[in-house]
Amino acid sequence: MFDLTRVARRCSRIVDSRAFEVTIVVVIGLNAALLCLETYPLAERLTYLHWLEWFFRAVFVTEIVVRILAYGRRPQDFFKHGWNVFDFAVIAAVFIPGLHGDTAALRVIRMARVVRLVRFSPGLRTIVTALLRSLPGVGGFLALALVTFYVYGMTGWLIFGEAYPDEYGTIGRAVVTLFVLLSLETLPDLIDQGMQMSPWTLVYYVSYVLITVNLLLNILIAVIVNSMEEARRLEMTESLAVDEDQDGIPDNIDRILISQRLDDLRTMITELERDLRIDRDARH
Amino acid sequence: MFDLTRVARRCSRIVDSRAFEVTIVVVIGLNAALLCLETYPLAERLTYLHWLEWFFRAVFVTEIVVRILAYGRRPQDFFKHGWNVFDFAVIAAVFIPGLHGDTAALRVIRMARVVRLVRFSPGLRTIVTALLRSLPGVGGFLALALVTFYVYGMTGWLIFGEAYPDEYGTIGRAVVTLFVLLSLETLPDLIDQGMQMSPWTLVYYVSYVLITVNLLLNILIAVIVNSMEEARRLEMTESLAVDEDQDGIPDNIDRILISQRLDDLRTMITELERDLRIDRDARH
Amino acid sequence: MFDLTRVARRCSRIVDSRAFEVTIVVVIGLNAALLCLETYPLAERLTYLHWLEWFFRAVFVTEIVVRILAYGRRPQDFFKHGWNVFDFAVIAAVFIPGLHGDTAALRVIRMARVVRLVRFSPGLRTIVTALLRSLPGVGGFLALALVTFYVYGMTGWLIFGEAYPDEYGTIGRAVVTLFVLLSLETLPDLIDQGMQMSPWTLVYYVSYVLITVNLLLNILIAVIVNSMEEARRLEMTESLAVDEDQDGIPDNIDRILISQRLDDLRTMITELERDLRIDRDARH
Amino acid sequence: MFDLTRVARRCSRIVDSRAFEVTIVVVIGLNAALLCLETYPLAERLTYLHWLEWFFRAVFVTEIVVRILAYGRRPQDFFKHGWNVFDFAVIAAVFIPGLHGDTAALRVIRMARVVRLVRFSPGLRTIVTALLRSLPGVGGFLALALVTFYVYGMTGWLIFGEAYPDEYGTIGRAVVTLFVLLSLETLPDLIDQGMQMSPWTLVYYVSYVLITVNLLLNILIAVIVNSMEEARRLEMTESLAVDEDQDGIPDNIDRILISQRLDDLRTMITELERDLRIDRDARH
Repeated sequence: MFDLTRVARRCSRIVDSRAFEVTIVVVIGLNAALLCLETYPLAERLTYLHWLEWFFRAVFVTEIVVRILAYGRRPQDFFKHGWNVFDFAVIAAVFIPGLHGDTAALRVIRMARVVRLVRFSPGLRTIVTALLRSLPGVGGFLALALVTFYVYGMTGWLIFGEAYPDEYGTIGRAVVTLFVLLSLETLPDLIDQGMQMSPWTLVYYVSYVLITVNLLLNILIAVIVNSMEEARRLEMTESLAVDEDQDGIPDNIDRILISQRLDDLRTMITELERDLRIDRDARH
Repeated sequence: MFDLTRVARRCSRIVDSRAFEVTIVVVIGLNAALLCLETYPLAERLTYLHWLEWFFRAVFVTEIVVRILAYGRRPQDFFKHGWNVFDFAVIAAVFIPGLHGDTAALRVIRMARVVRLVRFSPGLRTIVTALLRSLPGVGGFLALALVTFYVYGMTGWLIFGEAYPDEYGTIGRAVVTLFVLLSLETLPDLIDQGMQMSPWTLVYYVSYVLITVNLLLNILIAVIVNSMEEARRLEMTESLAVDEDQDGIPDNIDRILISQRLDDLRTMITELERDLRIDRDARH
Repeated sequence: MFDLTRVARRCSRIVDSRAFEVTIVVVIGLNAALLCLETYPLAERLTYLHWLEWFFRAVFVTEIVVRILAYGRRPQDFFKHGWNVFDFAVIAAVFIPGLHGDTAALRVIRMARVVRLVRFSPGLRTIVTALLRSLPGVGGFLALALVTFYVYGMTGWLIFGEAYPDEYGTIGRAVVTLFVLLSLETLPDLIDQGMQMSPWTLVYYVSYVLITVNLLLNILIAVIVNSMEEARRLEMTESLAVDEDQDGIPDNIDRILISQRLDDLRTMITELERDLRIDRDARH
Repeated sequence: MFDLTRVARRCSRIVDSRAFEVTIVVVIGLNAALLCLETYPLAERLTYLHWLEWFFRAVFVTEIVVRILAYGRRPQDFFKHGWNVFDFAVIAAVFIPGLHGDTAALRVIRMARVVRLVRFSPGLRTIVTALLRSLPGVGGFLALALVTFYVYGMTGWLIFGEAYPDEYGTIGRAVVTLFVLLSLETLPDLIDQGMQMSPWTLVYYVSYVLITVNLLLNILIAVIVNSMEEARRLEMTESLAVDEDQDGIPDNIDRILISQRLDDLRTMITELERDLRIDRDARH
């Protein structure tokens, strides 16, 4: 008879094995290589490449089925983790009717499979988690960048709008000009252009470069440094975290608790020192 | 009869409500969008856009009136906070007689309203506060940058002044050339130009690039990192700070006190360790 | 008779002497200067330069022989250290039969000798050790960079492949274009090119620049900062490390142990504070 | 009669006064402005500018005389401090016979006076001290940069020497090409050039950019961050330092002692924790 619990236990052992992981990573790598090959003209003559795609589909479907079976009688638990949902969506999407041949949509879906590599590397997962966590900080940064772009874009349109419509004709063009200026590539040309109008336009460009390029870029660096610190902190507390669902991703709540406890430390020490100081003063 | 205290209490409740804040942020956003739209040619045909501006003025005047009324019998307290003064100035300036039509001055004032968005985001406020606090550090940096620009500008004028008057004809042009060189865009051209004069000009450019570009830019990064650290420290101590005037900006003095107390920690620990060490040595 | 122990002791004293080290560094420097000189056309007329090369070979062979003799009866211990193996390989390779005249292979080997300078500077050795240690972190970064290049390369090929075959004709060209774009040099041209197709291509370039250039470069910075921290930590614990084999490179295991002990500190303090807090609360 | 002690005391009071410092800073600023003015053609017609230079000389000579007099009977102590020697040299050099008119040497000396501004700003002094202290670290970096330049320069000469003599004809040109490549400006052109020879030249440029640009620049950043940290540490311990000679520069030895004591802290805490842990374990 079909014993689901026994199958689940066997599947679970397969999923946890190093060989399973290595196989999937290798197949994803071959899949990526196939997609690369297809961009070269000679690939059109190699019709058997088409069959490889079907082989990859079979492997990935088997992978998902085994991983769902490993959950035994509670297959719905499989979808409780973000990466599992992503995996399922990417692998299932290819079977949506109407997606066949050499359409762009199909290519995008096949490409998305390669992103699954991130799932199999703990280091990458930590970096991606840290980057996602730094999004609230990046949000504040983006808002400040938008306000700065807006103020300089409107000012640029007021000053240069009529003289240089290609660069500053509308707020849209002004913002694109200012965004490209962030790369400092167009700085010499724009300063020359401005100097022909008036030397005072230097104030506009110098202040823009000093404020936007330096300050905003450095805020971004600070955000990234923050996210890296958080990533390291997460790694540090990894051994303390409980990973009940055994999917390799420690449960977040415990981690944050421990991280905060480490942060509280600084405040606590101050209090400790005060007490110890009083003791010492009393002793003398 | 008109009961000012009751009105003040009601206004205070409105000002503190989430809905009030969201409404103002949305109206500021729409105002910014209108200003953007006006930079496109088709906006001239949409005459009803003119009425939107009056709608925004009405909303902002109402906002200020409600917020002043919330102070009850002491409306002068409203002007005790920098952002309130900025809000009032920006909203009142539009009614200065003579400012009408499509003048640049009016546009600048209307644009300044968008900057008020910073007031409504605690994250942005923290960043802006931190950047302002780092100004003394930036001052030292700017002085060193000026001295470096001055020394290299004068040297550049002495070396290249006659050969390349466009780049180094006067100290002003030399400083602009050196400022643009900070973006490294013009480095290949200037080195080529210098090599035609003498290979020794390499010393000038290499030393300038090594000293100015690397060292000064990195000092700037250090300053920004400092300001970010201070911003984080401010956030860390936010919960400990007292915000008596309820305007969302914690009183600065308390914050600094707490921050300094955290800083003193390091010095205290050294003393503690010395005492404990002596104890330990005495024990053995 | 030939007394190996006495010779070993004398050689060991020579190897440890400052004069030996300075001599070798000077000879390596002269060797590097000779190689530089040979790139200038006039060097072909100076036939006696050929004899200098033989002098350098003699010095380096003597150096290796003395250093092997210093190991006395256990010359195989010489090859236990990476740098010693590198030294031996670089100096012996020149005597491989067939390598003579002005071949490129011979030049590469002679050039490799200059890299030996790193061995004689403790600072450089620390930096190189730190960089090598940061390789696992760089590996994670490179994987993420590859995935990002892959995704944007394939998307770029889909979008621009037919319109701009020079930049995006195959995945290979697309990746080269995107790698060069990391330097931001080609950003204005590529954005212009894209704008002619559709303003929506801005999303492609802006997101690529924001994600790849900023995030990935900053991850790299974070990795380097990590490796620098580790280098400093290694230096800090240098005095505590045991260097049994007397080759100037402290044994790594002790260092890491001590470093980790310092890292454990943070976790320990949290526990200590909790205990102390309970004590304090109980006292009041 | 001439009472040296009384004069010394009065001079000392003048030198320590805020007014004296402000006056000198203002005069240095005016002197810098005069030098800037002289680079403009109209300055040649303003003959009275010549007299201003003599006025500045008089002020600076008076400044030095007063500061030497403040040392009373031990004028030789004045020369014990680096900045004093610099001041004296810069102000005295102008009176070297033969230096008159509009010679370049005279201009360089007059320019050097402006650098004295650094002396009067404690912030600048801290930055400059920190930068000088980071020189040993920069030395290691420069050696590694030289080795990298050397290896890539020689390899570039081997690969491209014959095809592109302008960029790689000799080791000198190759190093200049590689230095300019550090700014990434010439990357697209050089990669195009290389691709025409062979796609394998990509390995040369990509590895050069990844290793040199990223790693070396980041090491430089690390060095600067180190020097900034040291600067902050110096500032932190400023209040603890003894400044016996009253020249505004705290004696370095005390500072370093205190800094090191702060550094030892980390090691001490580990020991403390171990002891406390044992106590705790014994208690339970």
